[in-house]
Amino acid sequence: MPGPAVLPPAAPRRRLRWSLLLAWAMSGLAAAASPAGERAYASVDPFIGTGGEGHTFPGAVVPFGMIQLSPDTQIKPRKEAYGWAAGYRYDDTSIVGFSHTHFSGTGHSDLGDVLLMPIAGQVRLERGDDGKPGSGYRSRFRHDDEIAQPGYYAVTLDDYGVRAELTASARVGVHRYRFPKGKPAHVLIDLRTSMYDYPGKVLWSRLRLRPDGTVTGFRETRGWAPGRQLYFAMRFSRNVSGHQFHDTEQDVIYKGFPPPAEKAPQLRAQIEGRQLVGAFDFAEAEGAQLVVKVAISPVSEDNAIANLDAEVPGWDFDGVRAQARESWSQALSAIDVDAPEAQRKSFYTALYHTLMGPSLFMDSDGRYRGPDNAVHEAKGFRYHSTFSLWDTYRALHPLLTLVQPEQRNSDFVNSLLASRRHSPYGVLPVWSFHGQETWCMIGYHSVPVIADAYLKGIRGFDADEALDAMVASASYGPYDGIAQYMELGYVPIDEEGEAASKTLEYAFDDWTIARMAQAMGRKDVAARFEKRAGNWKHAFDPSTGFMRARKRDGAFREPFDPTASGYGTDYTEGNAWQYSWYVPQDVAGLARAHGGEDKLIAKLDQVFDAKVDPKIFEHMEDITGLIGWYAHGNEPSHHVAYLYAYAGQPWRTQARLGGIMSSQYAPRPDGLSGNDDLGQMSAWYVFTALGFYPVAPGSNQYVIGRPFLPRAALNLPNGKRFTVIAEGLDDAHLYIGRASLNGQPLQRAYLTHEEILAGGELRFVMQAQPDKTWATDPKQRPYSMSSP
Amino acid sequence: MPGPAVLPPAAPRRRLRWSLLLAWAMSGLAAAASPAGERAYASVDPFIGTGGEGHTFPGAVVPFGMIQLSPDTQIKPRKEAYGWAAGYRYDDTSIVGFSHTHFSGTGHSDLGDVLLMPIAGQVRLERGDDGKPGSGYRSRFRHDDEIAQPGYYAVTLDDYGVRAELTASARVGVHRYRFPKGKPAHVLIDLRTSMYDYPGKVLWSRLRLRPDGTVTGFRETRGWAPGRQLYFAMRFSRNVSGHQFHDTEQDVIYKGFPPPAEKAPQLRAQIEGRQLVGAFDFAEAEGAQLVVKVAISPVSEDNAIANLDAEVPGWDFDGVRAQARESWSQALSAIDVDAPEAQRKSFYTALYHTLMGPSLFMDSDGRYRGPDNAVHEAKGFRYHSTFSLWDTYRALHPLLTLVQPEQRNSDFVNSLLASRRHSPYGVLPVWSFHGQETWCMIGYHSVPVIADAYLKGIRGFDADEALDAMVASASYGPYDGIAQYMELGYVPIDEEGEAASKTLEYAFDDWTIARMAQAMGRKDVAARFEKRAGNWKHAFDPSTGFMRARKRDGAFREPFDPTASGYGTDYTEGNAWQYSWYVPQDVAGLARAHGGEDKLIAKLDQVFDAKVDPKIFEHMEDITGLIGWYAHGNEPSHHVAYLYAYAGQPWRTQARLGGIMSSQYAPRPDGLSGNDDLGQMSAWYVFTALGFYPVAPGSNQYVIGRPFLPRAALNLPNGKRFTVIAEGLDDAHLYIGRASLNGQPLQRAYLTHEEILAGGELRFVMQAQPDKTWATDPKQRPYSMSSP
Repeated sequence: MPGPAVLPPAAPRRRLRWSLLLAWAMSGLAAAASPAGERAYASVDPFIGTGGEGHTFPGAVVPFGMIQLSPDTQIKPRKEAYGWAAGYRYDDTSIVGFSHTHFSGTGHSDLGDVLLMPIAGQVRLERGDDGKPGSGYRSRFRHDDEIAQPGYYAVTLDDYGVRAELTASARVGVHRYRFPKGKPAHVLIDLRTSMYDYPGKVLWSRLRLRPDGTVTGFRETRGWAPGRQLYFAMRFSRNVSGHQFHDTEQDVIYKGFPPPAEKAPQLRAQIEGRQLVGAFDFAEAEGAQLVVKVAISPVSEDNAIANLDAEVPGWDFDGVRAQARESWSQALSAIDVDAPEAQRKSFYTALYHTLMGPSLFMDSDGRYRGPDNAVHEAKGFRYHSTFSLWDTYRALHPLLTLVQPEQRNSDFVNSLLASRRHSPYGVLPVWSFHGQETWCMIGYHSVPVIADAYLKGIRGFDADEALDAMVASASYGPYDGIAQYMELGYVPIDEEGEAASKTLEYAFDDWTIARMAQAMGRKDVAARFEKRAGNWKHAFDPSTGFMRARKRDGAFREPFDPTASGYGTDYTEGNAWQYSWYVPQDVAGLARAHGGEDKLIAKLDQVFDAKVDPKIFEHMEDITGLIGWYAHGNEPSHHVAYLYAYAGQPWRTQARLGGIMSSQYAPRPDGLSGNDDLGQMSAWYVFTALGFYPVAPGSNQYVIGRPFLPRAALNLPNGKRFTVIAEGLDDAHLYIGRASLNGQPLQRAYLTHEEILAGGELRFVMQAQPDKTWATDPKQRPYSMSSP
Repeated sequence: MPGPAVLPPAAPRRRLRWSLLLAWAMSGLAAAASPAGERAYASVDPFIGTGGEGHTFPGAVVPFGMIQLSPDTQIKPRKEAYGWAAGYRYDDTSIVGFSHTHFSGTGHSDLGDVLLMPIAGQVRLERGDDGKPGSGYRSRFRHDDEIAQPGYYAVTLDDYGVRAELTASARVGVHRYRFPKGKPAHVLIDLRTSMYDYPGKVLWSRLRLRPDGTVTGFRETRGWAPGRQLYFAMRFSRNVSGHQFHDTEQDVIYKGFPPPAEKAPQLRAQIEGRQLVGAFDFAEAEGAQLVVKVAISPVSEDNAIANLDAEVPGWDFDGVRAQARESWSQALSAIDVDAPEAQRKSFYTALYHTLMGPSLFMDSDGRYRGPDNAVHEAKGFRYHSTFSLWDTYRALHPLLTLVQPEQRNSDFVNSLLASRRHSPYGVLPVWSFHGQETWCMIGYHSVPVIADAYLKGIRGFDADEALDAMVASASYGPYDGIAQYMELGYVPIDEEGEAASKTLEYAFDDWTIARMAQAMGRKDVAARFEKRAGNWKHAFDPSTGFMRARKRDGAFREPFDPTASGYGTDYTEGNAWQYSWYVPQDVAGLARAHGGEDKLIAKLDQVFDAKVDPKIFEHMEDITGLIGWYAHGNEPSHHVAYLYAYAGQPWRTQARLGGIMSSQYAPRPDGLSGNDDLGQMSAWYVFTALGFYPVAPGSNQYVIGRPFLPRAALNLPNGKRFTVIAEGLDDAHLYIGRASLNGQPLQRAYLTHEEILAGGELRFVMQAQPDKTWATDPKQRPYSMSSP
C-alpha cells in the first residue's frame, strides 16, 4: 500500500469561538446569491422523487435545516408505510396536514412531527380517509394549485378554500394561511400522527397554551429510534380566540385537569397523554391571513421558544422565504451547469437533494440530545444528525467535501465523534437520526466518512480522537459479528446473518482506517487494518466467482443460490450477483481473484445483461431500478459500472453509465428509480453527470466515467474553480475520445482530489464510437491497494 | 374581624446565597445531637403504621429526604393497591425488593421507583407470588431479623441467606448486602414495578451500564402524576463481573441493539423500553459484602451522578447511617418529652412521621422539575414537593412552624410559589408530588399554608407574589366550581360534585387570604375575601342542622341522607355528620346558626355517641377510625373534638380527646387508625399530646385540649424553650383543674403562637373530675371571625 496523499488543510485555521461560528452560519443567509445561483434555484423541482419509490418530500427546508416542513398525504400504518416514508406521494389526492420533520428518501421511516392543518368551518378530530372527502379533517388538493420550490411550498386545500404556504429557516417552520370569508378559522394540531404509524408509537406527549398565546409541547415516540423526544413552540400572528385540547385515548386512568376533561376541552391550558389533538380558533377578520411559526428543539419547550425568537422574531413570511431562497441559491451555486433545461432540472434537483442531510440537530444555544438521550452542548461545532451512513459514505459525503465549506464537513466529523462520546457502546454512529442510534443496516461507515474527510485535508476536529473512535468502532466485538471477524478474518454465517456483505464492507472500512492511520504516522494501526482490508478474500469463492459466506469451520454455506436475497441469505439487501463486486479498495485484487481483468469484465457483463424477472425481488422493498442484476435503486450496485474502468475498458463504463442515467433518472415526480437515501442516489447522479465518481472514498481519487453535461464548473470551497467541458457531446457522441487536464493530455481514467481542488479545466472531446485505447494503460489504473 | 397579630420575623435575615444555603443544609448533619435527641431517636418505631391502614413504610429516610428507601412486600395491581400504598405491609411474609421512593401514609399511591433485590444463586426475572416461595425473585423474611430505625433498615432475606441493610442521605440510598458463601452473588434491578401498578403505567425507561461500572437510567410513568420522569445513578463497591439487561415486553418493534437482544442480554450496555429488568453479577469474595449506592434526580442521569458524588462519595455505609441518625436525633430533639416509654414511642414515632414531607425534590445543583414537566433552577431556596395539602394544611404545616427552622418553612412557601409560576393554570399546588400536579382532593389549601406561615412571621419569600398567587388560585374559575362559587357564594351541586365540602373549605381558605391581606395592608383583598369567608352560611341548612349542597336555583338538593358518603354525594370522603362542623374560622357563627352553643354541643354529642354500623363506609377506603360518626382516620373530623372548647365546655373536649387518643393510636404496627397522610394523623397526635391544636391555621391560635404527657418542652427554632407540664397527670386525673402560663393563671382555652414563641412554661394541674368553670368565660373563647 503506497502512502496516501494527504492534503493540507484548505486554509489556516484557528479554534472557532461559538459566537464566530454563529456569525458565520448566519452570513450565508445574508450573502447575495449569484445570478447563476438564482438560475440553479429556478431549475430545482422538489417534486422529483415524490412519485415512485423516491421517497422525497416537496416541502420547505433550508440547506441542512433541522426543520423539514412538508405536506403529508397519508399517514400509513406500519405494514403499508414503505411508500409513504416521506409522508407525501404525488399520486394522492388529499392532504392530511403539514408536519415539521421528514426524511428525504428513506426506506424505513419515522418523523412527521407536529402536524398542523388549517380548517375553515367545522373542526373534525380524525384524519379521515383519502378518497372519502369529508370523512375527516383532511382536504383534497390539486397539483394545478401546488407550488414547490426550495424552501417554499404552496397548495390550496380545496375542501376548506384555504390557501396554505410554507417556508422555513433552520429551526423554524413558517406557515401562512389565507382563510375564506364567512367561515370560522381554525388551526388543528395533531400529535398522534407519525410516519410509520403503529399503535403505541407515541409514548407520551404534551400540549400547552401559555398565557401569552404561545403553544408549546413535546412528544416522545418509540419508532425507528427508541424514546425520541421532540419539543416544539408555536406562535400565531393573530390572537387565539378559543381552543380545545383532547386526549382521544380511551380507558385512561388519571386523565388530568379539569375532570371530566372530555366535557371541557376548552378549559385545559395543558394536556398530557398519548393521543393528543387540539384546535385553535381565530376570529374572522377582513382579508383574514394567519402566519403560524413553529420551532422545534431536541432539548426543551423553553429551547424551542428560544429557537423561535432567535430565527424568526417577526411575522415576515416573505422575508423568511426570501432568506431560504438566498441560502439555497448560494448552496446550489457550488456547481454551474450549462445544459438543456430538462437536464439542469435533473441536475439541480439532484444537487438540492444532496444538501439536506445530515441535518442540523442543535438548538440556538448549542444544546442537543445525543444517543444516550441526554442533553449535551456542542462547543466549537454544529451538531448534525440523520446519518444514513450505509448509503451516504459512498458518494454523498465525498460530494459534500467538494460543494460545501470545510466547516460543514468538519461539523459532520465532530458530530460523529460527539455521538461516539455519548454512545453507551463507545462506537461511532451506524444509522442515526435526531441524535438517536437505530443500528440500521450494516458496517461501521462513519469510518470512511471521517477518513475521506481527513485524507482530503479537512480539519477542525481531533484527529487522534477520530482515529481512536474508528478503531474502537471496528473492534467492538458484540456488534454484528465483529468479534468473529477479528478472530477468523470473516463473519461466519452460522453465527451472524448477512455475513458475506458484512465481511466485504468491514474490509473496505478497515482499509480507510489504514489509510488515515498511515497519514497520521500511526504505523501500528495502519499495519493492522491494512491486513484486515484484505479480508474480502475470505468471502471470495473461486469455484463460483461469487462472494459468499463461510461458516465458522471455514466451509462456504450450502446450498448456494446466487439469486437469493433478503433475510436469511448471505447478503444485505442484495444477492450474490449484486454484492460480489464490493472490493472498492482493491479492484485489481478482485480481478486477479477472478483470473484476470477479462474474466472480471465478463462477469460484470453478466450482471448487466442478465434477463431477470423483477418478481424475484418482490419481497425486497429496496432492490429496485434493475438492469439485469444491477439494481441502481440500491447502494450495493452504485460503484459497479465504474469497475470496467479499473479493468482497462473505460468505454464499457461509459456505455453502462449512459444506460443507467437514461433509465434510472428523469425530471418528473417518479423520476428516481429507488429511495433517494438522504441524497446518495442524487449524489451518484451529480458525480456521474460531472463525469467522475468516488468509487473508493479514502483514496482521494475519482474514477472517470464520462461527462453528461456540455459544461459544468465546480466553485470549490477554497475559492477555486474546476471546470469540466464535454466538447461535441450530443446524443450521437457519447464516448470519450480525448481528455485533457489544464491543457495536458489525460490518459488515465481517474482524477485526484488535489487536481480538482487546484482548480482548472478538465476537457473531454466526445465521439460517436468507443475509444478503446484511451485510459487503458495498465500502469495508469485507478488506485487498488494490491497494485504496485 | 380584628386585625391579626402578625409576628415579626424570628431573626434579621438577608438574602441567602446558594453556597450559604448549602452550607446551612449540611450543618445539620454535622451538628452533634443532644442526649435527649439520641433518646428520642431510640424511641421511634418506624413499624408503627405499617399494619392496618396507616400506609407508612419502615425503610430508610432522612428528615424531608428525597430518597425513601424501603422494602416492598407486594406490588399490587390497581384494584388491590390501596393496602400496599407504601409498598410494605407488616403482615406479609416475603419481600420483593427495596425501592427508593415511597409516600408515607397516602390513600392513593404511586412511586416505588428503582427496585433492587440482592440475589444469591439463580436469577429469576419475575417477582413471583407472596406465599409461593421460589416462584420468583422475592424472598421470605421474618420480623425477628428485622430492624427499623430512623434512617436505617435491616432484614435477612431467608431464601437467599442475604443480610440486607439500608440507609440514606437526602438524595442517595445506600444498601449493604452480605452474601452467603458458595453461591453466585447478583443484584437485580426491576424498572417495571410500581406502587398502584397497572399495564401501561411505565411509559418509557432506560438502563445503562457505563464503562466505569456506574449504572444509570430513568423511567417515566403515567401514574397518579402524568408523565413523571425520574432518573437514577447507581454504583457498586465491587466490580461488576457480568450483567444482563432484558426487555420483557412482547411484540416490540425495533427492540434495539444487539439484535436479537433476547439472545444476548449480557451484551447490552444500554436498553430502552417499557418493561426492563436487569441483573449484575459479582464474583465471589471472602466475606463478600457489597455496598450499593443509588442516587435519584428529577433532571437527568448526569445530575443523578452528581447527586451521588456530592452526598456519598465513598463506601462508608456506617458513616452514612451515623449521619442519618444524627440528623434524625437533631430533628427529633425539637421536643423533649418525659413520659413512659410506650408513650414516648407513640409520640416520637408520630414526630418522626411529621418530618418526612413535603420532601426535598431538587438536585445538588439546585435544579428540579416543575408541574410543567420542565427543568428549573431554585435560587435561594430548596425546592420541596409532595404536598398532600388537603391533609397537611390542618396540623402538619402548623406543627412544622414550631419544630423546624424558619428556612424549612419558607422553603415550603417558595416551593409552592415556584410551582405556581410554572403552572399552566397559574395556580398554587393542589396535591403535588415529584413536582407534578395530581389535582387530588379539593380546595386551594396551599393558601392556608402560606397565610399561616406569613402570619406567624415566617419570611424569606415575596409576600406580594404570595398574596397574588393565593388570590389567583382562589379565583381560577374552571377549577372545581370556583367560577360558580364566585358567582353564587356557593358551589352548586347540579354543576359540580361534592359541592358542600367545596363551599366550606373554600370559605375557610378565603378567610386565611383575608387575614394575610389585612396584615399586609391590602384592604381591598381583605374585604373581598372576608366576605367570601362567610360563604359557609350558604351551605348551612337550619331545618336539618347540617351543611348541605344547594343547586343553582338556591334550593338544597333532595333527597337528603345525612349518612350518605362518597361519589355523587354532597361531600368529599365524608357525610353530613362528618362535614357539618367545618367552619374553623367562625365556630361562634356556626353555634349561632345552630341556635346557640348548647345546640351545637348537643349535635356534636350526637356525632360521637351515635351507634354506627361501620359497614356503611365499606365503599369508602379512607373513612376509618370511627367513634360514632366521628372518623379519626380521615381529616374532616380532625378538629371536631376541639369545638366543645369554643362552645364553652372545654372539659368535653378533654373527655373526647382521651377517647380518641386511646382508641386511635397505639405503639404497634397497626397502631394508626387511618392513613397517616404524609404526617397529618401524626401531627394531630403530637399537638394533642402536647395539649393544644391549631384548629384554624391562620388564626395564630392553638386551642387547648388537655395534656397527655407529664412534661414536654418545645425547643423552638428561635432558640427559646416552651415547656408544658401536667401536674398530677395519671389515669385517674385526666381533666384540667388549673392552668398557668409563666406563673400567671390561664383562664382561656387557647394559646397564641406569640406566647409559645416567647418561650416559658405552661403548667396544668390535672384532676379527676371535669372542672366546669375553667376557660368558660364567653369573652375568652378561641378566635371566631364573627365574634366581637
